[in-house]
Amino acid sequence: MNEVELIHLILDRLGTAGRDAQLKIGPGDDAAVVAWEPEQEMVVSTDVCLDGVHVPRDCPGDLVGYRTVAMSVSDIVAMGAVPRYLTIALTIDQADVDWIAAFADGVRDGCTDANTTVIGGNLAKGVKQIAVTAIGSVPRGQAILRNTAEPEDDIWVTGKLGATSLALQTMTTWSPRGLSDLKRLTSTDVIARYLLPPIRTRFVDCVRECASACTDISDGLGFELTQLVSGSSYGYRVESREIPLWPSAELEEVLTQDDSYEILLTSANDKREMVLNYAQSSDIPISLIGKVLSTSDRIFIPDHDVISRTTGYSHF
Amino acid sequence: MNEVELIHLILDRLGTAGRDAQLKIGPGDDAAVVAWEPEQEMVVSTDVCLDGVHVPRDCPGDLVGYRTVAMSVSDIVAMGAVPRYLTIALTIDQADVDWIAAFADGVRDGCTDANTTVIGGNLAKGVKQIAVTAIGSVPRGQAILRNTAEPEDDIWVTGKLGATSLALQTMTTWSPRGLSDLKRLTSTDVIARYLLPPIRTRFVDCVRECASACTDISDGLGFELTQLVSGSSYGYRVESREIPLWPSAELEEVLTQDDSYEILLTSANDKREMVLNYAQSSDIPISLIGKVLSTSDRIFIPDHDVISRTTGYSHF
Repeated sequence: MNEVELIHLILDRLGTAGRDAQLKIGPGDDAAVVAWEPEQEMVVSTDVCLDGVHVPRDCPGDLVGYRTVAMSVSDIVAMGAVPRYLTIALTIDQADVDWIAAFADGVRDGCTDANTTVIGGNLAKGVKQIAVTAIGSVPRGQAILRNTAEPEDDIWVTGKLGATSLALQTMTTWSPRGLSDLKRLTSTDVIARYLLPPIRTRFVDCVRECASACTDISDGLGFELTQLVSGSSYGYRVESREIPLWPSAELEEVLTQDDSYEILLTSANDKREMVLNYAQSSDIPISLIGKVLSTSDRIFIPDHDVISRTTGYSHF
Repeated sequence: MNEVELIHLILDRLGTAGRDAQLKIGPGDDAAVVAWEPEQEMVVSTDVCLDGVHVPRDCPGDLVGYRTVAMSVSDIVAMGAVPRYLTIALTIDQADVDWIAAFADGVRDGCTDANTTVIGGNLAKGVKQIAVTAIGSVPRGQAILRNTAEPEDDIWVTGKLGATSLALQTMTTWSPRGLSDLKRLTSTDVIARYLLPPIRTRFVDCVRECASACTDISDGLGFELTQLVSGSSYGYRVESREIPLWPSAELEEVLTQDDSYEILLTSANDKREMVLNYAQSSDIPISLIGKVLSTSDRIFIPDHDVISRTTGYSHF
């Protein structure tokens, strides 16, 4: 297949998953056209998924497609915004029709789960990687930043952390189980959880209503905790034993290189019950792991000395 | 420098070029936040610039940065939309601070020329490539598609075509001339024109007011001509000698693989004077090269037999 035929294949597979009436012109022209609700602001984020870094080499296409969508959507959710539209640029070293078709299937499945839709993209020959731009909407002035935590705020995290390193240690061959089977296992199996990060769109209202600051966890919990107070001179105190870990996960790895794409947020004390209610009603596990300090101290209790690195993953 | 330091370096270099009051939160958070004018629709396009394909290998960073912006902006202009915002994802194999700083300079210069601004991005380690998402605005319902030409419409093209292949034939070493010097030469020098494609934002009003269909030329003129009528059963007749070529450029190459990023449009006969006036007032050369036919014939006069391929560049 040539480039045009492959693009048609992808678009056929994607179908109309997640489309809404605001999308006036979808993929296929020089650009997509979207009408925008005047009371909404637009939230825009770009991520890259690298073969061998963000996904294991030779990962089946549908798993890469799903993971790519989940990774990019988590940035939008962390702003308290509803994911709406994606553009996806796939670079791949050969016209591997089966892999590309599976990739499109995984993207479609992720879009269905995130209630978002692909409005454009690019296909080119080169080393395999995927660049995604995600566009979300949030009521005017209500986007939640990541560095605006206030002293005494509670610090919360969704889900469980540490699946990545456990999965990479135990994953020797690709499971014959397909995407839909793996999706059923994400609450019990580290490999499934690593490959298919959570899509927390049901948590958007909680972020917008309750959070004083919020980010997704893509570079280690320690780095993300520091982000929460990077706009101020505040610090934090975290109870290490309250950090929700997968069995056998190592805390230091979780602090320095976890990319679980769970949501980390702070909220005022008086919203504690509200956060718990949102978590319960949206069936999303949540843990209260500490609080924001008015000083710049960064304290982990009880094992502070174990944890000195908070720099997070660096590509360089 | 690590990843965070490199990102700061890039943001420092970019400065506030092209920013507008609608940008509420710029680069640095999980996502950018943009307020949108209710009477405007949003136009979104994603492009990838591959090292060794869209730019020669070892191309200086500032030239790659400028070219990347120009490439992505041309899709927005071709919709009759004003370029507003870009996200840029750079993947590079090492933390080459000088190259990255120069790249940011070139992006800034392109943004200044296009009156657009970078609102977010990504930096990762890998084979060098750049993915850009461009977002533009167009009054509601006025976006120009690329396949809606009508019979008897004039076919126009801006600028001159064919610089790419001529440049690649003659370019043996990198000119010591910098970006600003090269920019002054784009109307006379094929290498300068190839490296620094036109940013036709001054032509947006003409596209929106006059065009029945429009696209930019990124995959050969023949392929793009076919796009103009791909939504219908119409064809075209093009006078080959009216196609504006660089001296020594070969017509067949221009038809099959030109990526000059010039603007190709159709317009009704009765708008001919209006198009010419817009071109003159915006100081953009324009050529009337043919017309749309009510039949599906695709005719080049006088040398039709020379030109049979209209498939355009395919990555695969």
